[in-house]
Amino acid sequence: MGQQSTATATATAPDALLDLFATTRAESVARAAPLSDAEATIQSMPDASPAKWHLAHTTWFLETFILRDFVEGYEPFDAAYAYLFNSYYDAEGDRHARPRRGMLARPSLEDVLAYRTHVDAAIMAAWPTLPVRARDLIELGCHHEAQHQELLLTDILHAFAQNPLEPVYSAAAPHPPYAVSGPVNWIVGPAGVVEIGHDGRGFAFDCEGPGHKVYLHPHALADRLVTNRDWQEFIDDGGYRRPDLWLSDGWAWVVADAIDAPLYWKGDTAFGLHGRQPRDSVAAVRHISFYEADAFARWAGVRLPTEFEWEASAGSLSGAFGEVWQWTASAFLPYPGFRVADGAVGEYNGKFMSGQMVLRGSSVATPPGTSRMTTRNFFPPHTRWQFAGLRLAKDV
Amino acid sequence: MGQQSTATATATAPDALLDLFATTRAESVARAAPLSDAEATIQSMPDASPAKWHLAHTTWFLETFILRDFVEGYEPFDAAYAYLFNSYYDAEGDRHARPRRGMLARPSLEDVLAYRTHVDAAIMAAWPTLPVRARDLIELGCHHEAQHQELLLTDILHAFAQNPLEPVYSAAAPHPPYAVSGPVNWIVGPAGVVEIGHDGRGFAFDCEGPGHKVYLHPHALADRLVTNRDWQEFIDDGGYRRPDLWLSDGWAWVVADAIDAPLYWKGDTAFGLHGRQPRDSVAAVRHISFYEADAFARWAGVRLPTEFEWEASAGSLSGAFGEVWQWTASAFLPYPGFRVADGAVGEYNGKFMSGQMVLRGSSVATPPGTSRMTTRNFFPPHTRWQFAGLRLAKDV
Amino acid sequence: MGQQSTATATATAPDALLDLFATTRAESVARAAPLSDAEATIQSMPDASPAKWHLAHTTWFLETFILRDFVEGYEPFDAAYAYLFNSYYDAEGDRHARPRRGMLARPSLEDVLAYRTHVDAAIMAAWPTLPVRARDLIELGCHHEAQHQELLLTDILHAFAQNPLEPVYSAAAPHPPYAVSGPVNWIVGPAGVVEIGHDGRGFAFDCEGPGHKVYLHPHALADRLVTNRDWQEFIDDGGYRRPDLWLSDGWAWVVADAIDAPLYWKGDTAFGLHGRQPRDSVAAVRHISFYEADAFARWAGVRLPTEFEWEASAGSLSGAFGEVWQWTASAFLPYPGFRVADGAVGEYNGKFMSGQMVLRGSSVATPPGTSRMTTRNFFPPHTRWQFAGLRLAKDV
Amino acid sequence: MGQQSTATATATAPDALLDLFATTRAESVARAAPLSDAEATIQSMPDASPAKWHLAHTTWFLETFILRDFVEGYEPFDAAYAYLFNSYYDAEGDRHARPRRGMLARPSLEDVLAYRTHVDAAIMAAWPTLPVRARDLIELGCHHEAQHQELLLTDILHAFAQNPLEPVYSAAAPHPPYAVSGPVNWIVGPAGVVEIGHDGRGFAFDCEGPGHKVYLHPHALADRLVTNRDWQEFIDDGGYRRPDLWLSDGWAWVVADAIDAPLYWKGDTAFGLHGRQPRDSVAAVRHISFYEADAFARWAGVRLPTEFEWEASAGSLSGAFGEVWQWTASAFLPYPGFRVADGAVGEYNGKFMSGQMVLRGSSVATPPGTSRMTTRNFFPPHTRWQFAGLRLAKDV
Repeated sequence: MGQQSTATATATAPDALLDLFATTRAESVARAAPLSDAEATIQSMPDASPAKWHLAHTTWFLETFILRDFVEGYEPFDAAYAYLFNSYYDAEGDRHARPRRGMLARPSLEDVLAYRTHVDAAIMAAWPTLPVRARDLIELGCHHEAQHQELLLTDILHAFAQNPLEPVYSAAAPHPPYAVSGPVNWIVGPAGVVEIGHDGRGFAFDCEGPGHKVYLHPHALADRLVTNRDWQEFIDDGGYRRPDLWLSDGWAWVVADAIDAPLYWKGDTAFGLHGRQPRDSVAAVRHISFYEADAFARWAGVRLPTEFEWEASAGSLSGAFGEVWQWTASAFLPYPGFRVADGAVGEYNGKFMSGQMVLRGSSVATPPGTSRMTTRNFFPPHTRWQFAGLRLAKDV
Repeated sequence: MGQQSTATATATAPDALLDLFATTRAESVARAAPLSDAEATIQSMPDASPAKWHLAHTTWFLETFILRDFVEGYEPFDAAYAYLFNSYYDAEGDRHARPRRGMLARPSLEDVLAYRTHVDAAIMAAWPTLPVRARDLIELGCHHEAQHQELLLTDILHAFAQNPLEPVYSAAAPHPPYAVSGPVNWIVGPAGVVEIGHDGRGFAFDCEGPGHKVYLHPHALADRLVTNRDWQEFIDDGGYRRPDLWLSDGWAWVVADAIDAPLYWKGDTAFGLHGRQPRDSVAAVRHISFYEADAFARWAGVRLPTEFEWEASAGSLSGAFGEVWQWTASAFLPYPGFRVADGAVGEYNGKFMSGQMVLRGSSVATPPGTSRMTTRNFFPPHTRWQFAGLRLAKDV
Repeated sequence: MGQQSTATATATAPDALLDLFATTRAESVARAAPLSDAEATIQSMPDASPAKWHLAHTTWFLETFILRDFVEGYEPFDAAYAYLFNSYYDAEGDRHARPRRGMLARPSLEDVLAYRTHVDAAIMAAWPTLPVRARDLIELGCHHEAQHQELLLTDILHAFAQNPLEPVYSAAAPHPPYAVSGPVNWIVGPAGVVEIGHDGRGFAFDCEGPGHKVYLHPHALADRLVTNRDWQEFIDDGGYRRPDLWLSDGWAWVVADAIDAPLYWKGDTAFGLHGRQPRDSVAAVRHISFYEADAFARWAGVRLPTEFEWEASAGSLSGAFGEVWQWTASAFLPYPGFRVADGAVGEYNGKFMSGQMVLRGSSVATPPGTSRMTTRNFFPPHTRWQFAGLRLAKDV
Repeated sequence: MGQQSTATATATAPDALLDLFATTRAESVARAAPLSDAEATIQSMPDASPAKWHLAHTTWFLETFILRDFVEGYEPFDAAYAYLFNSYYDAEGDRHARPRRGMLARPSLEDVLAYRTHVDAAIMAAWPTLPVRARDLIELGCHHEAQHQELLLTDILHAFAQNPLEPVYSAAAPHPPYAVSGPVNWIVGPAGVVEIGHDGRGFAFDCEGPGHKVYLHPHALADRLVTNRDWQEFIDDGGYRRPDLWLSDGWAWVVADAIDAPLYWKGDTAFGLHGRQPRDSVAAVRHISFYEADAFARWAGVRLPTEFEWEASAGSLSGAFGEVWQWTASAFLPYPGFRVADGAVGEYNGKFMSGQMVLRGSSVATPPGTSRMTTRNFFPPHTRWQFAGLRLAKDV
């Protein structure tokens, strides 16, 4: 998500929660394992955060909303961390300016890992006595951390891309690529009144609910994602040079930033977590903005799906999850009946419902098991550093 | 509209069209009548245009899409004007940069008025022979010009507000103000599937259609607009100092621009077309941004209506038209089945469907007779120089 | 001057002062005569001022420092003008922001001319009773106004250049151009200790004194100005593409602003007060920045003269006055013993002695009779909208 | 120096050069010793560089201008380093953008130290066979590195100051502070023609010569530096709130950046290499801009010395070296007869002779033994992160 989120309801069983907690906390450390202290410190742009910061902020979340609020006598690991590692919770007081997160050479990565260990141990010690409200917040904290795990990867990729040495994050073989080719098949989606949004069973972020009705007009969705080969055709056909294909803001962005290809493309290669690699023509295109996705769809004579069309058909779509987030035609707005939660944990998705477009699905960087049909990711329309691609839709 | 629009369909009778043409062309001149050449030349910000430019651009539109395209042998009044007075039609070629429109001290206001007379006469001469397609475009041109008439007033007001002398545009008495007080009454709107958008009978801009179905959840709308007195209570209660009331982007805007009241307020006065005047507590608040409207609604414990809720109830709402445009909770996006028209006149609303919020109704500056229940005005969420206010809504 | 100045001393005879006053006041009006109200209103950049503003500001100077301070019972023509037309005299209170001067469509040009008439009449009425200090300030006011007369022309030229119609300020034939060709002859200047600066006889601006000694090393100055033909050779030889020729700041400016020719050049033409005209190869190059002048000199294997070398030889140099101001290698800094005058009129040259380079001589736009061997003009090194060129120098 | 410099001439004996080389190379490593990899990686602003970058750039200088140019068959340690660690030598090809130096998490600090060892060893191996020209360049490289040693400290101090934890660079006791109090005594300097600049014996940077004559007017210099106590009086007297004390650019800077004290002051403390410490009232004020120094002098009724006055008296001034660089009233301009050296090593001081003011003396951060009476340091007038203070002067 562009920003992080909170739960509306939960029903995770105690043992399952312990598993979730252990798995989540370990996964963050595993994602940072390939990084040196220096690599975990740098920040490549105001929208991105250092890896170390992700590790510390997710820990601060648990320390604050669990240990401080539910464990009597708990003393903060370091009193300064609340200032350093609060992200945007105004109700939690002042905080270090976001664009200056890359200045925090101290605490070191080692210090931050010690902070994690300390907080994890304190939570485990308190576990038997935590009330339901605290357990719900732990579940929220785990899903919040899962979002930061994805950002940790997209942010470090962006940082590495600034280095002419083009460092390799992972030397392991990439997971088998999504591979499609041939013409698009169109899958007709449901029309008329459909149910959208989270129904309250199991965890979901606040913005995924309430469940509600939406009227859908006849439409169909592509059975596959747009690929690098498709995108190359768009480029070859002058896609980046024809203003008629673009939204006005999108065209201004293309001109101002001299955009002529997806982020990280150079010649026939693309830069990624495995370093610079030849581009796979049958893999899903990634690292494109909403403006690009929208222009591509117009070039193809069709359109992007709404987030409702996507959700109504997601179960039958190839590549819906685990490849690339898919830009939709929907602005990120509250569902009917949406209410912000009380207190600091309520400062979540609601306040970001302006100027952002919804993406659906999940990506290669999304931690397994954290995707839902109802998940709403969101970013400003010019954003490209996420693993974002597209799926086409059309009226029928 | 933030930008201008095109018709989807038309059925205006020939005589009625002649009336519309004559009335529209005269109204623009009347609105510029109080202005000197210098006042008609200046541009106060990139988003605003000089009065002279509005007069010339609307004329260029007719000269281009009627005289050039339908009248054989027509010679442009001045070949340079196409470059100077094209607004954003990429298909019509290069154009003078928008932020530099205020540099056009020549042609003079007198030259521009002569241009208008010339084009009007040429259209009148050709009138009997114009085909239906041309008549449709004339109707579009008139509605397009009506939009610029409103902008002419909001832009000149903004320009006058930059002058410490605070010039008076109109010495005539203001039209009787909208006057309401007392508590809000709530009018329950229709729930379930409703029909939204223009049905194709009579003129409408492209973005108002196609007519389509939307599912509405139970809700109610305020029977009156928010007033200056209401707004003063918001201010007195710290509305501009509480981040919890604001969208994240809105709060950043409040802080960066030191916003603490609607535009043009100073002490107990407000600046307007009649100069600086004491503020009328029972009049509708105006010159607020979407961010402010949204924060006010949150402060009041309710919300803004969606544009669909607004349209479904507009017939029964006091102050729906002729006072202030009313910000809605809806982003400006295409309706299901929306198609961009072919050719240069197709470069309209479609390309502005990004980063803007919808306003509904009309304002004191809207030319009479040009408001429809289906009209969709749109501006970026920080925009304040339009006559924009708000109406509250809530779930029931 | 980039900014305006004050006198250190004066000895103008009473009758001569009256002549100076009448001539100066008439000259400003004459320079504005070709302009419409709108043309006199626009401002093309923060560094430039509207013609109307120059007319009013020079009048405000006289109204304030003569009428207000020396004529009992004088009532200001308009109390608001002090706010509008003060330029930068902090001691005189708040003022209208410089970049917003172009918003002053009112007062009209006609109003400003009436203001001038009013103030002139009041000064003439008071003339017989004015004390010596007031007469000195009138003389200063005339020289101050002469500076604004030059700026009025350079500013209106810059404004006209923003208009694609490229308006003509003066249809009269240009004054006979400075015409030179052939190789440069070098004139050896005086070496050793020389006297520099104004000796206190007659009018001079404060920064021209005190007279003082400077040690000059052996050097020679070119007997002519650099011409358009010379400059074309520089361009043809890659002058704008070779970083080794440029100061570091200059090269950054060339790259950022895509500079590849003097301001107002296009193809074989140059834009000027007579409109766009074929470029005269034997005329002095104009509208170049200090950075360009410096790079040209380096390309030519020589250097710019210091302002002291220039002054020591100015009497024997062709084209020293009345063509183009000549950039020197000297930063604008105080002379030994320089003292700022007391009071508001003391807020002059002294406070601009940072970040600017000295130009010597005078230009085609300089009012006749206002040039001195000791005049120090100054502008930031990237500035190009003045009539500025260069003369070469070298060590011998 | 704001930028680095090159030698005009040298006469260091072979053994002395070996000592200089060993000492210099060891000193850089010693200065980086307290830093972690992450601390050595971060960059706090475009004007500053990471510590690691200083270590690598100074090594690249030697590798390029000695090993590449004089040692046959030498292979670069890493071919990518030329791109990463060139600073501004256009003749040496493209380079990594200065504001992105903080993105270089790789190579690691360990890699860079290995690079240093490798290059040092290669130079030592080649030492017996190096020609005189190479030895001269080694001497230049050592002095160049000494400048970077000072910058390493000022840059890391600035970076640490961005961290709310306010890390301590050095826990050792500060060197005994410069301690003065009581009224200023004035030391009359030489008047008339004096000799200025480096005479060619021993090492000097190019901009320090040629030696030449300057005419000085009667003047005196303060026998001590301005102290923190003096500066507090300036603040208490409204020094930062009175525009009449400031250069126009300086006042704009004070207002825009809300400047009200020297950099790193907070309450009665100042942040420095020893962390945040109580401020010593009798120590020299440091971390002020030229604008502040100039305003202080005006407030005190006197002025800053020219760089020539400073040099003519430096031998008799307390605190001339080893405390703070002292801002002078002189712009950084070439001396009469100054010539840029041929080739890439010629891209030094000459191209920075625009927009900068001269500082004289040396500071606590200057490596011992590298100060000369003729040293000319230079920075833009708003710069504050150097150890810069001031000494007063006056006319007599």
